[in-house]
Amino acid sequence: MSTKRKVAVLVAGSWGTALATVLADNQFDVALWTRNEAQADEINTHRKNSRYLNDAVLPEGITATTEMKVAITGAELVLFAAPSAAMRDVAKLAQPFLEPDAICVHATKGFESVTYKRMTTVLSEELQIPLERLVVLSGPSHAEEVVRRLPTTVVVASASIETAEKAQDAFITRHFRVYTNKDVIGVEVAGAIKNIIALGAGLTDGLGFGDNAKAALLTRGLAEISRLGTAMGASPLTFAGLAGVGDLVVTCTSKHSRNWRAGSMLAEGLTLDEVLRKMGMVVEGVRTTSIARELAQHYGVEMPITEQLFAVLFQKKTPRSAVESLMGRGRTHETEDVAGA
Amino acid sequence: MSTKRKVAVLVAGSWGTALATVLADNQFDVALWTRNEAQADEINTHRKNSRYLNDAVLPEGITATTEMKVAITGAELVLFAAPSAAMRDVAKLAQPFLEPDAICVHATKGFESVTYKRMTTVLSEELQIPLERLVVLSGPSHAEEVVRRLPTTVVVASASIETAEKAQDAFITRHFRVYTNKDVIGVEVAGAIKNIIALGAGLTDGLGFGDNAKAALLTRGLAEISRLGTAMGASPLTFAGLAGVGDLVVTCTSKHSRNWRAGSMLAEGLTLDEVLRKMGMVVEGVRTTSIARELAQHYGVEMPITEQLFAVLFQKKTPRSAVESLMGRGRTHETEDVAGA
Repeated sequence: MSTKRKVAVLVAGSWGTALATVLADNQFDVALWTRNEAQADEINTHRKNSRYLNDAVLPEGITATTEMKVAITGAELVLFAAPSAAMRDVAKLAQPFLEPDAICVHATKGFESVTYKRMTTVLSEELQIPLERLVVLSGPSHAEEVVRRLPTTVVVASASIETAEKAQDAFITRHFRVYTNKDVIGVEVAGAIKNIIALGAGLTDGLGFGDNAKAALLTRGLAEISRLGTAMGASPLTFAGLAGVGDLVVTCTSKHSRNWRAGSMLAEGLTLDEVLRKMGMVVEGVRTTSIARELAQHYGVEMPITEQLFAVLFQKKTPRSAVESLMGRGRTHETEDVAGA
Repeated sequence: MSTKRKVAVLVAGSWGTALATVLADNQFDVALWTRNEAQADEINTHRKNSRYLNDAVLPEGITATTEMKVAITGAELVLFAAPSAAMRDVAKLAQPFLEPDAICVHATKGFESVTYKRMTTVLSEELQIPLERLVVLSGPSHAEEVVRRLPTTVVVASASIETAEKAQDAFITRHFRVYTNKDVIGVEVAGAIKNIIALGAGLTDGLGFGDNAKAALLTRGLAEISRLGTAMGASPLTFAGLAGVGDLVVTCTSKHSRNWRAGSMLAEGLTLDEVLRKMGMVVEGVRTTSIARELAQHYGVEMPITEQLFAVLFQKKTPRSAVESLMGRGRTHETEDVAGA
């Protein structure tokens, strides 16, 4: 039997697998849970997760399993990396086996549908643990680069600084730098909403606009995400950090982003239905645009970029006239606007 | 004689010429001053400035001249777009002809050598006018895109909000959106120091690191620029705006930047002397790294990225070990770090 400390990772998508690699590099025994037998076999036999991270050879410290009890029992840290839509179900399955003092980290970007709840809220409800045992991990981090041990930095935020520091200790390596942060709301809101701006970036690029326009979109987008987050209780400083501007830069400048691709197809004149049919999978930014718009109305916050994207997605506004509406807005004093005053 | 309102632009580099185009689009009579007879002739005869903006056809509203008196007389607004090293001399030449109520805008990024003075300070001294008549214009704005009328946004900052609004009125067009800002120090510091981070971006790209590393560099770089600026009297919010993160994104993601190219050559193992010889021209980020390091020491501010770049440029540290030093720094709490506490 191994004398190594044990952690569990649920589920074996690209990001879960990449973070499992980081934990294995830190000498943890990593149980990687998946519902998929074939995937578990491939990981254990061939050290590969070909569907999600085809080029990576996974370290020996990772053992895949389809049994939740086997995965969770004895784990001092459980990392939840399920899609936001599956998070509640995965947490329900995990709850019976959770060790009483285990800390729970999640690395999932998005709100729950219908309830618009943040992921730590969902986890706290389903795992029946206080927020002080929960951590969110976020930042500019393509999974493909993490498994290649390219330098990466992230933040871990928790209502308890001690819990955040435990997560920091678990994840920090020579290639993976981890900062702590107290602002759970800010980190979760920034991660969830940036996909809207990536959609907008694809749209301006698709219209043939240049780097000036994209930088402006990113900056003004950050300002409106920050306004919403602040109204929801976040610290504005978080949006200037890795989970805010850092993640936004990575998402908006990568052409591999699904959101970016969807935006560029809209700019070419395809309807939303056509884009979604072509993509054949969920485009997170589309759903998030509706959610952010509702949250903005609820909190009384102005989000002009979100508003224009909503009009393009759901009200047949043309991308070009949406950009013209943004450029034509009344003269504004920049810092008042950023501060949300 | 023209009944149009008159403005002057000094000098006819790429940025001065692009902004002259914006002003001409706004129906101003634009006098564009240059020391170079041949360049003035080319502009007036062929509507071209082939050395700096080869693809642009300049509007009829622009008239080039080599005579400062002709350029400045009757101008209600004078735009200074000289290189930082030439700013004092150009201002000296302009001073005798300046109209008593003209406002003076500059669009130059950098500190004066030796004195480390900001450009509004230099202009105020040489033009013998109060800071309330001075404006700085900055933001994410490749000149090549501005002359193509691609959407662009900038900020204008002044000690006087009325003066900033006058500049806003003069420059705002359907394609060129102008925000006002009161924070002159922040806008000038952000514009001057971002070139360091562009140098660092070239360095990490040259080492073969990925998007995660570059986003981290940009975010942490923004944090240290913000710390220095705040210590110098700027508002931290400015660094989250167009002159801060906006300009940084454009500069760090463009491979056309001289600073980026210099950084990537350093990563390939060339010495600073070899890089400068190959480039055959000034690399602003090199000079700025020394200046920022001195300012950081003067104001007692921690600037780890600047420090490591200084070691690479002037102390023979290898780029790879500089990155390792940055990744290996002690564990830090992110928002304290951003806030400079």
